[in-house]
Amino acid sequence: MFKKRRTVEQVEESNELAPKFDENGLIVVTTVDFETNDILMTGFMNKEALERTIQTKEAYYYSRSRNALWHKGATSGYTQKVREILIDDDQDALCLKVDLGENGASCHVGYKSCFYREIDLEDTAHKPGLRFTNIEKVFNPDDVYGDEPNPTKL
Amino acid sequence: MFKKRRTVEQVEESNELAPKFDENGLIVVTTVDFETNDILMTGFMNKEALERTIQTKEAYYYSRSRNALWHKGATSGYTQKVREILIDDDQDALCLKVDLGENGASCHVGYKSCFYREIDLEDTAHKPGLRFTNIEKVFNPDDVYGDEPNPTKL
Repeated sequence: MFKKRRTVEQVEESNELAPKFDENGLIVVTTVDFETNDILMTGFMNKEALERTIQTKEAYYYSRSRNALWHKGATSGYTQKVREILIDDDQDALCLKVDLGENGASCHVGYKSCFYREIDLEDTAHKPGLRFTNIEKVFNPDDVYGDEPNPTKL
Repeated sequence: MFKKRRTVEQVEESNELAPKFDENGLIVVTTVDFETNDILMTGFMNKEALERTIQTKEAYYYSRSRNALWHKGATSGYTQKVREILIDDDQDALCLKVDLGENGASCHVGYKSCFYREIDLEDTAHKPGLRFTNIEKVFNPDDVYGDEPNPTKL
């Protein structure tokens, strides 16, 4: 589905889709809410995930923790309807603009967005802490995932 | 400056900043416009880049093409003033919210945002092409960078 990368000008200035997958075959993806532009999550795609996303207009990623193609929402029901896919200058990063639907969520912890905390930039003399920005969870992970293993790695 | 990662609960639910740097010592960063939430760029930081960003409130990244700490805007003058830094659930991705200033830009090709093209999702039977979304450049890269090598890799 993709063009071969030939020249810098082709990659930066043409209308040819020639994405660069890294040494692990992955490209980084930032996913944002189509209506608000709020960042929802950062993930990775391999070639197959990007092809399926383009074909189905639902977001597929590559799960690095499970080493597998990942249809976002397959377990939780919180699929992402893809409205736009942006690509950056050197075509090694993507941005998905998605609709989550009413009460949709992107985060396995239960929040709408994975980015529910910010670094406290006011007191940086000591080790800075985090502040919660989204205080209410959209769902209870225990109800949705049951005994599925938590994907967070230490 | 950062805490040791001890438990999943600490990483996901506490106010301790315990970022996960990958096997290359890097963490992925999405940078967005503080006012509009528009995505500007995707990059990477190492520990030193994140520490300097927190301390100086200007964005530092780690350049993978140059293998060096990178003070964004050091060459072009287009620095990024950091207003917020969000972190995701498992603390392996960051989102910077920045002010670029009037006529600021984040893209070495000359556009305000690196994401100036989108994938054409209307005709995906054949190889999909790209459409330009931001038709005007903010600056002329030849004037700003002169003979500096182009960072895009094929």
